[in-house]
Amino acid sequence: MTTTTTPSEQTQALLLRQGEITVESATVPAPGPNQVLIEVAAVGICGSDVHYYDHGRIADFVVREPLVLGHEASGTIRALGSEVTDRQVGQRVAMEPQETCGRCKECLSGRYNLCPQVAFFATPPIDGAFTQYVVLDSIRAHPVPDSLSDEAAALIEPLSVGVWAARKAAIEPGDRVLVTGAGPVGLLCADVARARGAAWVVVSDTNDYRLEVARQRGANQTVNAMAGPLAQQIEPVDVILECSGAAPAIQGAFAAAAPAARIVLVGMGAADLELPVAQIQVKELVVTGTFRYANAYPAAIALAASGVVDLDGLVTGEYGLAQAVDALQAAKKDPHTLKPMVYPGR
Amino acid sequence: MTTTTTPSEQTQALLLRQGEITVESATVPAPGPNQVLIEVAAVGICGSDVHYYDHGRIADFVVREPLVLGHEASGTIRALGSEVTDRQVGQRVAMEPQETCGRCKECLSGRYNLCPQVAFFATPPIDGAFTQYVVLDSIRAHPVPDSLSDEAAALIEPLSVGVWAARKAAIEPGDRVLVTGAGPVGLLCADVARARGAAWVVVSDTNDYRLEVARQRGANQTVNAMAGPLAQQIEPVDVILECSGAAPAIQGAFAAAAPAARIVLVGMGAADLELPVAQIQVKELVVTGTFRYANAYPAAIALAASGVVDLDGLVTGEYGLAQAVDALQAAKKDPHTLKPMVYPGR
Amino acid sequence: MTTTTTPSEQTQALLLRQGEITVESATVPAPGPNQVLIEVAAVGICGSDVHYYDHGRIADFVVREPLVLGHEASGTIRALGSEVTDRQVGQRVAMEPQETCGRCKECLSGRYNLCPQVAFFATPPIDGAFTQYVVLDSIRAHPVPDSLSDEAAALIEPLSVGVWAARKAAIEPGDRVLVTGAGPVGLLCADVARARGAAWVVVSDTNDYRLEVARQRGANQTVNAMAGPLAQQIEPVDVILECSGAAPAIQGAFAAAAPAARIVLVGMGAADLELPVAQIQVKELVVTGTFRYANAYPAAIALAASGVVDLDGLVTGEYGLAQAVDALQAAKKDPHTLKPMVYPGR
Amino acid sequence: MTTTTTPSEQTQALLLRQGEITVESATVPAPGPNQVLIEVAAVGICGSDVHYYDHGRIADFVVREPLVLGHEASGTIRALGSEVTDRQVGQRVAMEPQETCGRCKECLSGRYNLCPQVAFFATPPIDGAFTQYVVLDSIRAHPVPDSLSDEAAALIEPLSVGVWAARKAAIEPGDRVLVTGAGPVGLLCADVARARGAAWVVVSDTNDYRLEVARQRGANQTVNAMAGPLAQQIEPVDVILECSGAAPAIQGAFAAAAPAARIVLVGMGAADLELPVAQIQVKELVVTGTFRYANAYPAAIALAASGVVDLDGLVTGEYGLAQAVDALQAAKKDPHTLKPMVYPGR
Repeated sequence: MTTTTTPSEQTQALLLRQGEITVESATVPAPGPNQVLIEVAAVGICGSDVHYYDHGRIADFVVREPLVLGHEASGTIRALGSEVTDRQVGQRVAMEPQETCGRCKECLSGRYNLCPQVAFFATPPIDGAFTQYVVLDSIRAHPVPDSLSDEAAALIEPLSVGVWAARKAAIEPGDRVLVTGAGPVGLLCADVARARGAAWVVVSDTNDYRLEVARQRGANQTVNAMAGPLAQQIEPVDVILECSGAAPAIQGAFAAAAPAARIVLVGMGAADLELPVAQIQVKELVVTGTFRYANAYPAAIALAASGVVDLDGLVTGEYGLAQAVDALQAAKKDPHTLKPMVYPGR
Repeated sequence: MTTTTTPSEQTQALLLRQGEITVESATVPAPGPNQVLIEVAAVGICGSDVHYYDHGRIADFVVREPLVLGHEASGTIRALGSEVTDRQVGQRVAMEPQETCGRCKECLSGRYNLCPQVAFFATPPIDGAFTQYVVLDSIRAHPVPDSLSDEAAALIEPLSVGVWAARKAAIEPGDRVLVTGAGPVGLLCADVARARGAAWVVVSDTNDYRLEVARQRGANQTVNAMAGPLAQQIEPVDVILECSGAAPAIQGAFAAAAPAARIVLVGMGAADLELPVAQIQVKELVVTGTFRYANAYPAAIALAASGVVDLDGLVTGEYGLAQAVDALQAAKKDPHTLKPMVYPGR
Repeated sequence: MTTTTTPSEQTQALLLRQGEITVESATVPAPGPNQVLIEVAAVGICGSDVHYYDHGRIADFVVREPLVLGHEASGTIRALGSEVTDRQVGQRVAMEPQETCGRCKECLSGRYNLCPQVAFFATPPIDGAFTQYVVLDSIRAHPVPDSLSDEAAALIEPLSVGVWAARKAAIEPGDRVLVTGAGPVGLLCADVARARGAAWVVVSDTNDYRLEVARQRGANQTVNAMAGPLAQQIEPVDVILECSGAAPAIQGAFAAAAPAARIVLVGMGAADLELPVAQIQVKELVVTGTFRYANAYPAAIALAASGVVDLDGLVTGEYGLAQAVDALQAAKKDPHTLKPMVYPGR
Repeated sequence: MTTTTTPSEQTQALLLRQGEITVESATVPAPGPNQVLIEVAAVGICGSDVHYYDHGRIADFVVREPLVLGHEASGTIRALGSEVTDRQVGQRVAMEPQETCGRCKECLSGRYNLCPQVAFFATPPIDGAFTQYVVLDSIRAHPVPDSLSDEAAALIEPLSVGVWAARKAAIEPGDRVLVTGAGPVGLLCADVARARGAAWVVVSDTNDYRLEVARQRGANQTVNAMAGPLAQQIEPVDVILECSGAAPAIQGAFAAAAPAARIVLVGMGAADLELPVAQIQVKELVVTGTFRYANAYPAAIALAASGVVDLDGLVTGEYGLAQAVDALQAAKKDPHTLKPMVYPGR
């Protein structure tokens, strides 16, 4: 293990159980042979973090042991595992917060996000990044240029969600794209659609502030979903990126789909939902969903580094570890909240 | 118009309204410039024909004027339109029973089945093939080799449904394929899956006779859907071709889907259906549907002509036009019915 | 035929034979049932026009009868054929200069550019647009917004070449793209690569002025091909769009290809060429070529209308019909020439 | 390491240098944590083995140290590495003779055959299977059913070459396929084309015996390449699988390609070759090559196990290790030779 001096103790925010977070001291882990040790710089708050805090679970993933939240993270490499030759101490990195087996059918087929042994940050029982130091497989520590801020490097994670969704939809120049839901992921999906040359990007939400942000970021049209059926407010679209997880949005979107449209379910919501299967047939729609992402970080970093997608503009609050609860609750208190950031080092 | 002598009058079976069919005399039509006149040899009974007879409608397609049923048809070219140079009088053909505009976005993109102006046989107000002579665009009159019987040439139509579904699913050697529903279309979907090299084809139905037919045709496994949840009876599959239109079959099939599986909804059923969207996301399933077919006839003819797919074995009854009602009701009276054929010339 | 008053006579520039152009009077054609009559506004000079003028032929296409050159054209609809309902008199349009049969295997498969009966402007014996009025199938007369100039509307044609090439290459965010040859088509290919989110676009040429233009239009790197082997000057690329037609450029490009790179041969050059087939195998490169385009105009118009691709900036000279020869010879006299325009109405 | 009793010494055939093979004693290796120890049952002779014996090198791969040849191998697992849980001692396996890093861009993208660190059997300096025991990553030791003979299990390797080539070509029902070269790989490519539903498979070679074998295995047409230009003897084809590596075959094949045909270069020959690039452009042909295979063994095993592809019929000779040179020279002595097998245990 090549290393500079790193402390043996660190501070982390622990979710003890539903609604209870404490800040505690913990041992700094040693990187395994293929891992690097990263000093965490910035961590974005994701809806899943809020959900674990509020409910103590997401679907079958239950918080049974104290859990470190946070999976949208950036930092600096402080030590290298014994086998690591492709990274250097001091490199600033965006963390792809998953480790996979590399040996199963899914990994060998290039869709490692579906690896049955995937270990994903902040998903019980795997700890996340509300802590000063983490270890990560070196291939998941993606170097970023200095032009990217710590915040932008952290938000490569939700941008990768958008990159993956747009790739599933195979968005091309000339396509008309509808994004339902204008939270951070929806906004970034709209950005990636534009970055792929979409001819027209329309964003829907029920929050007018978020729609205003969507317009400022380049959406061609915005629609308040409360104003009536989507299909009556927009021209038919070739692609729908569903980012709300809201049943009415999903169901309403199908009527806006042009023949052979591709629909990607990004937002998580109900486990089961009534869908217009006759429309899937008559229009030969293609419906799929995204589960995180694979091979998306390099593209996301390139889009951010070139200035095509603005990440810093999403940040709406800065918090230390001791304020983690405030960060998690920010969205509830202020509808203008987009992306609160936690800085474990502050 | 090049022609041999054809009569000016013909006999046809007309669906006057729900449940009422009459045999009447009608004028033999003259082919348009790009059309051919075909003397009909054999016509298969499709579930949609039965549905129009029983209910007078399918979804928004309502029988308001007398309608000639039948769209699975073969015949012999008896006259050529003035512009036709690629067909000859006397050629035996399988009829692709649709005419499209050739000018819209869908036609120009190679998915002419989605043409908004498509005119499809036996779909109100377009007449079908329970008649002695029909006209058809020459490019939809596909020559067949003499080795194909009239019945096989007619059943190129449902085989094309299977060809199209399997193409949508991109079935490859090594794939495990589940076909839900063992009616004629399901049986042919299973055949095409096998013809594409599927490693394992499992067919489910609730009719044991049909499962027995599936086994005889080469299915590796059959499952009676009443015997319990599908996912408990079979190994995970890479492809599902849903041919039953039955809600429990569709919903049960998702649990049997392997990661990244492709699910094609072929069978028509309820317009809306509760689907396990969380599974679509977590397993990144791809769900689509088929609306008839495009560019599928040549492949279907090749599969039948080479003997890879047996069509004659599906025939379970022969009827003249005067017995059209018997043909339409055959399946209700005998669960061993697969494909009754009508012969307008007898 | 719906029409406004149009003259019965017009003026056109005729290529009589290699190196000889005359301006003559001709009859204004009447649109066929599915055609529109277009008053030509602006026509870009393409290398193929120059080649016909200089050599009297391109490969097997020989100028045996007087030929009207010009296929990059815009104009205004002045009359409608009897069947046209989807266009209006007065609409400004970009002309997709090809008519296809709509009935062959290629047309039905969505690749109508490969139709064996394609009639393409300014390709013997089909006349082009160096004339005041032309007729064109209405579906090839693509309406443009008023924000597009006549010149930009004409240059939708070469932009469509770029759209088609980039689509063949399936360029995605994160891809590194090399464009060899910085003429108008190469510059537009680079623009489209950027518009699809390419992470890095490098352009090579031997003309430093053109490389400077490429940089100004957004290329991340430019390389003078005379400075040494390409592969020594650039990092490996995922996509190569070959727009020079020059043997050394093509051969040199392969060494710069990353594993699984896609190489699209856009520029026309020698009929036969020595290629490094062992590299195609060892790196599993995918090599293809483009023959004009299909279904590309709507995307090209959207890219130009949104400002993502600048077309007006390519224009380097304005000529009347009487100056057609000057326009055709401009590039030989001035290496700063990019796109001379001919205005038949001036 | 779980193990049964295995000897510590084994016998192997060593290629000392060009044209010189000796049989020597060697230590039985111990499997690494993720490896299994396999007792070799049967090994097919590949053209590359012959080439190393005859020339001491292939392109840049030079035999500098004694090398064990043979990479088409089957055997039985005799011991498991410490981490192996997915295999069992006693399992019969087909060996996929490559180990890859699992961490590079190519591996993560599902094309591990392009891994820059790939270690492939019998490619200097990696030893192959002309030996009694080998170690192999457990994920590359693919269990086979008892219905497959040792020979068939070994020949899963060349069958995987065919599976991969046909996958690259995306062969579908209805496609017309040309296979140039009727050696074992060409014959298997033709088999896989048929197994994917190809409508017509035509095989060319200059060896009439091999063409006769092709016909017996199901080719629809065979052509002796000496009889004149291919394009004059066959109808245009949608797919070409080039398995000869012979320049005239490759060049002649292009003229037989239909518009949009896919051409896969499988056979290795000259590093550089003159190709008809104008045809690639005018017909928009897609040309690619194959470098071994990835994720192909399961499909190949399924095709062989189901009886769709016959492997045993290719075997044309049985040799012990001491007769390795005879096995390598068999093809030179008898033009009826297809696949000599070496049995290290005899």
